[in-house]
Amino acid sequence: MAFLDAAPSELMTRAIVVDTSDSTDLVPLLRAALSRGARVVTANKHVLTGPQADFDELRRVGGMRVLYETTVGAGLPVLGTVASLLATGDEVLSISGCMSGTLGYLCGELEAGTSFSAGVLRARELGFTEPDPRADLSGRDVARKALILARLLGQKRECATVPTESLYPDSLADVPLEEFVRRLPELDGRYEKMMRAAARTERALRYVATVTAEGCEVGLREVPKKGGLGSLEGPENKFVIRTRRYDEHPLVIQGPGAGPEVTAAGVLADILLAMETTCSQ
Amino acid sequence: MAFLDAAPSELMTRAIVVDTSDSTDLVPLLRAALSRGARVVTANKHVLTGPQADFDELRRVGGMRVLYETTVGAGLPVLGTVASLLATGDEVLSISGCMSGTLGYLCGELEAGTSFSAGVLRARELGFTEPDPRADLSGRDVARKALILARLLGQKRECATVPTESLYPDSLADVPLEEFVRRLPELDGRYEKMMRAAARTERALRYVATVTAEGCEVGLREVPKKGGLGSLEGPENKFVIRTRRYDEHPLVIQGPGAGPEVTAAGVLADILLAMETTCSQ
Repeated sequence: MAFLDAAPSELMTRAIVVDTSDSTDLVPLLRAALSRGARVVTANKHVLTGPQADFDELRRVGGMRVLYETTVGAGLPVLGTVASLLATGDEVLSISGCMSGTLGYLCGELEAGTSFSAGVLRARELGFTEPDPRADLSGRDVARKALILARLLGQKRECATVPTESLYPDSLADVPLEEFVRRLPELDGRYEKMMRAAARTERALRYVATVTAEGCEVGLREVPKKGGLGSLEGPENKFVIRTRRYDEHPLVIQGPGAGPEVTAAGVLADILLAMETTCSQ
Repeated sequence: MAFLDAAPSELMTRAIVVDTSDSTDLVPLLRAALSRGARVVTANKHVLTGPQADFDELRRVGGMRVLYETTVGAGLPVLGTVASLLATGDEVLSISGCMSGTLGYLCGELEAGTSFSAGVLRARELGFTEPDPRADLSGRDVARKALILARLLGQKRECATVPTESLYPDSLADVPLEEFVRRLPELDGRYEKMMRAAARTERALRYVATVTAEGCEVGLREVPKKGGLGSLEGPENKFVIRTRRYDEHPLVIQGPGAGPEVTAAGVLADILLAMETTCSQ
């Protein structure tokens, strides 16, 4: 970080530091860059979902100079839209969304009659999951996105306190991957039953993140099949934003919410935005 | 316009001129303000849909200092999203959308079995149409929005050349309003027949604006009932944006696309954006 300490402020105020890593190691560097007047563009959720005190410090030092649109929905215009609604005096009542392509694909498979274990393994074969699918099935990645939205609304809370429903029981959390995969069929009955119960009332199962003015939570939910989150098919993301102004009819944004190309484009869009506003603070 | 001529440029570069009128009278004033370095925020479609030469001049003088997000979809983040996709090197393949709340409501009524004439009169009673409903039924307002999108994609064309399907025949274009209303039932048979034909193949009728790389057009179209534009109900707007990056799964934005509150908020958002970028050009 010596270059940051040595850099003159005039130069640093024109610098844009970009973090596309998946690590928390860079947070001190980002903070140092911000304190010298640089802008930060990050696609790294960990920068925004660490301890509340770290987040507050980031906001205190960096203010609006931290851009992180791609951390939720990749290239979809979600965070910018919510920020703009807030900036113009709107009040967000709720944001509910399917924010995991992996879990969206899995819900679609269940709906098509595939067993839970076969659905997970197919998603893994297609590269939709991490090598250890528990990283996705735990819901932790969705919880991080929900927390980013909640903090954007001004909530102060730790990631560990976001109620997060895991799709596998605690008893399978620490077993070796091989054993986890072998024992996946133990869960098939549970999800077949849930799916059938939902279908009987024209409802579908979706892994939903819900952020309200009071809190946030993520988990498997029954939603009406028609319209809203129930009509979503496959790995796409969908965000339903209800505000005081968009109440009866919400503002909805839908599309691919992951993938290297749309994420890279979103990072570039943030960099362009940072360039446009370089001298405004 | 004396104040514009007299104003020092240093002051003008910090000015934001806002046009929320429905008139073309202000265009010379806006151009004068832009040429002195001011920014312009407009909710007035006519500023963007006049002769191509005027539009080119506006862009030449004003560059990125003309903000007009609310002219398409009111407060929905449509133009900004398309502009950002273009700025990051994406290629727009098509934008198709239902961009008229009035005609969306009318299509919903037809689908529910209401006759065309009764649907039009009900929409008028609810304040969804202009006092003379032909202003909406002509499709001209939708054509203007399609032209704004087409010009954003770089197309050069005049509003009069946008293929625009009117929902009433030429023979009713110039009759007095009273006669038009009295003769509306003459059209009922036509639309009942179209609606039935669509329903037989699981399709719905929607008034659709289509903008591609080659051109744009607006008119009544049969669309699949499930997903996409067919799933839209009532007066909401929906925009389906297909690009090289968002091809198999498009980027979709949906919500109320008209109304004083969301439009005013969108204008305020443009003003805030103009403030943020005040010194960057």
